[in-house]
Amino acid sequence: MKIGVFGTGVVGQTLAEKLESLGHEVVMGTRDVQQSLTRADKDSFGRPPLKDWLAQHSAVKLATHAEAAAHGALLVNATNGMGTLDALKLAGEKNLNGKVLLDISNPLDFSKGMPPTLFVCNTDSLAEQIQRTYPQLKVVKSLNTLNAYLMVAPRMLSEDHSIFLSGNDTDAKNEVRGILRSFGWKDSEMIDLGDITTARGTEQLLPIWVRLWGALQNPMFNFKIVMEPAPKA
Amino acid sequence: MKIGVFGTGVVGQTLAEKLESLGHEVVMGTRDVQQSLTRADKDSFGRPPLKDWLAQHSAVKLATHAEAAAHGALLVNATNGMGTLDALKLAGEKNLNGKVLLDISNPLDFSKGMPPTLFVCNTDSLAEQIQRTYPQLKVVKSLNTLNAYLMVAPRMLSEDHSIFLSGNDTDAKNEVRGILRSFGWKDSEMIDLGDITTARGTEQLLPIWVRLWGALQNPMFNFKIVMEPAPKA
Repeated sequence: MKIGVFGTGVVGQTLAEKLESLGHEVVMGTRDVQQSLTRADKDSFGRPPLKDWLAQHSAVKLATHAEAAAHGALLVNATNGMGTLDALKLAGEKNLNGKVLLDISNPLDFSKGMPPTLFVCNTDSLAEQIQRTYPQLKVVKSLNTLNAYLMVAPRMLSEDHSIFLSGNDTDAKNEVRGILRSFGWKDSEMIDLGDITTARGTEQLLPIWVRLWGALQNPMFNFKIVMEPAPKA
Repeated sequence: MKIGVFGTGVVGQTLAEKLESLGHEVVMGTRDVQQSLTRADKDSFGRPPLKDWLAQHSAVKLATHAEAAAHGALLVNATNGMGTLDALKLAGEKNLNGKVLLDISNPLDFSKGMPPTLFVCNTDSLAEQIQRTYPQLKVVKSLNTLNAYLMVAPRMLSEDHSIFLSGNDTDAKNEVRGILRSFGWKDSEMIDLGDITTARGTEQLLPIWVRLWGALQNPMFNFKIVMEPAPKA
């Protein structure tokens, strides 16, 4: 399948690599290709520059957001939340309309120091802002509640854990379920919270996520919903 | 131990009943004792009027917030979040100072319809508001992330699950740990998130909690943090 991934950070790289390994044709979108390739420094997580990563993942193409959007039959938003709406504007409405967008972004604002706050929450969410801006895009919020490595390799934890889905379109959610399944998620781990407004719930998990990371000194954890009988939603 | 419980709703009743059954002397605080005893209707959950509940739990005394606060060596805030600061004002600073307050309240605002929004979040929390208003009260936020019945009977779920603690005072948190242990919580299930500002994390779990309740059609669930090795914080 042709997939466009917006964002070249750790989430974008991890998703692109996994999707490519599953046989998809992946184009990764960025604001300015030349500038992205010029960067020579390691990022704040100590990861190598993008050009080195691309050299090791030559099947993944780097292009503009518009080219990635035009390429993809399925789109993945792995941009920094602060830059999401700008990136989608560059992608272009005509390249987005009618497609499914798996939205992994979070409205984290690091500008006021750590831990980050949310620049939209409570009565709105970033996922809803995207859906309102592009009414013909089928936004499905998922995977935004855990570390990138666990998103694509949930079986790294031996126990079951939970992954949430929010979105207005049932077929689009089913398409995302298929992607999650291909990453190793079990159907019994997927919880459909309802329409896109339920993304307020998962985006507001981030404040405890960042504090758990601090308390546990380990980002490789996830939330599991424990219930008897086990959740089926 | 002498314990004052603020609030006479389902959370207050459930906590008071459990604490009384464990041998504590419990006084339940309310704004207006006579008015609380006069109510004859079932509440919105179909629970019997308070006077019937008190008739069945005669060891629990009903009194004003001030009397409950003066009575308790340990205090429990089980009021509706909207009424918390008013209730504590009625309790009186001199009755609060130096004591531990287990704060179970959540800043839920039902005035704009369902699902509720939060009247404080993101850059502040209700727990912090309480702590700022009463600097000599030792506020420990806990138990606010699950159904009242599960708070006092965590072993109703056969699997382990997680309970969070936030507060500035280590001794106060240890006192709350003791109460949690007496309810059946395991030490391995308790996660100390850090100081009272981390209550922003647990209070912001409520938006997904209410949506999970809707999606699962069952309030008897809880969050479990899954990690390898298991969390120790």
